[in-house]
Amino acid sequence: MHKTDKAPSVIIFSQGDEVITGALVDTNAAFLADQCRLLGFDVIRHITVSDDLADLVQVLKEVDAMADVCLCTGGLGPTQDDLTAEAFAQAFQVELEMDSEALVMIAEFFAQLKIPMADVNKKQALLPTNSTRIDNRWGTAPGFSAVGQQCRFYFMPGVPYEMKQMMETFVLADLQRQFKLEQPRLITFRSMGMGESDIQQAVNSLEIDNDIRVSFRAGMPENELKLLFPQSHTKEQVQYWVDNVSDALGASLFAIDGWGQSVSNLPDCVDQLMTEKKLTLSLIETLSQGDIARQCQADWLLTSAVYPKVSGIQTAFSTVQQPIGEALALEIAKENRARHKTALSLVQLHKKVNDTTVAVFTAVADAHGHISSTKEVWGRALRQQTVASALAFNLIRKFIQNQ
Amino acid sequence: MHKTDKAPSVIIFSQGDEVITGALVDTNAAFLADQCRLLGFDVIRHITVSDDLADLVQVLKEVDAMADVCLCTGGLGPTQDDLTAEAFAQAFQVELEMDSEALVMIAEFFAQLKIPMADVNKKQALLPTNSTRIDNRWGTAPGFSAVGQQCRFYFMPGVPYEMKQMMETFVLADLQRQFKLEQPRLITFRSMGMGESDIQQAVNSLEIDNDIRVSFRAGMPENELKLLFPQSHTKEQVQYWVDNVSDALGASLFAIDGWGQSVSNLPDCVDQLMTEKKLTLSLIETLSQGDIARQCQADWLLTSAVYPKVSGIQTAFSTVQQPIGEALALEIAKENRARHKTALSLVQLHKKVNDTTVAVFTAVADAHGHISSTKEVWGRALRQQTVASALAFNLIRKFIQNQ
Repeated sequence: MHKTDKAPSVIIFSQGDEVITGALVDTNAAFLADQCRLLGFDVIRHITVSDDLADLVQVLKEVDAMADVCLCTGGLGPTQDDLTAEAFAQAFQVELEMDSEALVMIAEFFAQLKIPMADVNKKQALLPTNSTRIDNRWGTAPGFSAVGQQCRFYFMPGVPYEMKQMMETFVLADLQRQFKLEQPRLITFRSMGMGESDIQQAVNSLEIDNDIRVSFRAGMPENELKLLFPQSHTKEQVQYWVDNVSDALGASLFAIDGWGQSVSNLPDCVDQLMTEKKLTLSLIETLSQGDIARQCQADWLLTSAVYPKVSGIQTAFSTVQQPIGEALALEIAKENRARHKTALSLVQLHKKVNDTTVAVFTAVADAHGHISSTKEVWGRALRQQTVASALAFNLIRKFIQNQ
Repeated sequence: MHKTDKAPSVIIFSQGDEVITGALVDTNAAFLADQCRLLGFDVIRHITVSDDLADLVQVLKEVDAMADVCLCTGGLGPTQDDLTAEAFAQAFQVELEMDSEALVMIAEFFAQLKIPMADVNKKQALLPTNSTRIDNRWGTAPGFSAVGQQCRFYFMPGVPYEMKQMMETFVLADLQRQFKLEQPRLITFRSMGMGESDIQQAVNSLEIDNDIRVSFRAGMPENELKLLFPQSHTKEQVQYWVDNVSDALGASLFAIDGWGQSVSNLPDCVDQLMTEKKLTLSLIETLSQGDIARQCQADWLLTSAVYPKVSGIQTAFSTVQQPIGEALALEIAKENRARHKTALSLVQLHKKVNDTTVAVFTAVADAHGHISSTKEVWGRALRQQTVASALAFNLIRKFIQNQ
């Protein structure tokens, strides 16, 4: 196997009181780490500290000694708590200079919003000597890139949208210019209905090459299996593993993301099928209480009725006298489809089994046939809702794909 | 002002490839940081590293030299990647011992699930000498607590549910036993309808004491303003600031969490009002597509109908011939309430204004009166759904509270 050089290392550095105190979940760190990995970097650490100058200086020096690249978010705002540029200047003994172009851009930003620019905003145009400004067209804070003793730092705002725009317009391209990277290929196998341990066992038995990074994420209830192939793998080698993994996952596999397809989850998979086949849907939900409907697209979902208690359906479908179960779900699905004249109809009912478990009955029907299922779902109310919705989408998918 | 001793310091330490590579957003870190802050600790850093033994040993030593407490998640599983206990043993030169009680509990866990216990699971019962086991009744991995050179470490599983249970059943109480803490009082002002900059301006003008920590979180569209009072503040002092902040927020304030009340968000606020007044609700949604219904409680939501396109309603309410608007929403609300015999009825319609903006018409009616509103909502589809739902809950709240 072709041995590649060691990948350059990255540290993700988040700063700010909101993150350190837990007022805010740091979604930036995961986003940035993922982007770096897809470029071919090795992410070695995430570090978060508060807006304290001494701490910031200390961490910048530590990071400089440890990593080739540091992606830093937060601390670029106009207030006293925003100390990033100052901390960088102290850590690496450089000056801060007023960047006149940045100042003009900040002024223009305020002019556009018709808000007077406060004096404190001028501070945001102070950047370290020899740094490269990263423009921010979506907020007041420009970012900047600069090299410490040996590590290349990129400083971006903490606002996720502004950070992501800077990544797309400058940082990703600059990283590729500055470093020799072997970009890996990521393929995600999305499955539903096969347990975590079963998937792991199936994958273990395949004895996947060591240089393919295998990772697994147990969703609720969708599961993701990711294979990260080094650039050195040929299309044929990748295809070999895609075929083998697909066989191992069998019917539970609903999409292969990154290998011709682009599918983010089950509702997205169903949307692609409904759109492609120009189908429409009418829907009745109980346990999921609208959670199925909200994940459908308005283009093909014509109507949905929610009855948190199944007994509420009896008024609407008074002809139906059967006990709650799979057969009743199917009966109502047929009737509701006729009422609303949709191509497909889905009905999901449920019945309490015990304090923590409900039985979920799902039925899908069209003019020619139907499919139905009964599954027990345990856990708290929110978990039951989520699983029930996924069961519904999975049944629609199976029904359309098997036609 | 009474000067307190310096609060003991905490580092939040997350480990695992899923977090470091960005496959998973680390929600544990925010949860743990928040819990520590509420106990009176000072959170000084979050650190994340991958499942690499040398890295883990290195970080454990660094943390030991920096903080009084370290809360660590991940790395307790049965596989080769789970190296926490081994890393601790190496870092502080202690042995690993088989904990026979832990072994019995792991075996019982598998017996309960009727799954054979694999040999690798035995490894999970290996704990460092002189450590205190933390039982895990919700998974196979026991946690443990142990002191390094000077820092007290708590190791918990990465699965959020298991980690939270360990915090509640052992760690929080142990932290209070081991440290002398000055527990601050957290009060959260929840508001909706007042912009972020308006709230900040209103709060700035109050000139709140420096030792009260003020933080702000702009939600979509709910906003949270948090005041963290040192223990030294009397009830009267707290009441003074609660009154002042309440006045500043005015009618947009819907709940004060942590000062007699316990309210987590708008749907929770509405649930409390509906339950207390024994009301029932029938609902019609368009733009939000079920997002309102799923956040209601099955106890009082009797039925909901979803029409992603408003035109779909014309079949169901054929008598209604008015143009789409606030008056039509109100008309349908009255009719739907009569049909379903609920105490309250809410109807929300919408109309496209331009490519990024829709007008949302919401009406609530009961036997005696009604309330309605028209608001423009911009942004992508998911944002519009979320805001539309919040507008609905806010209108129900206003309607009930003004009676």
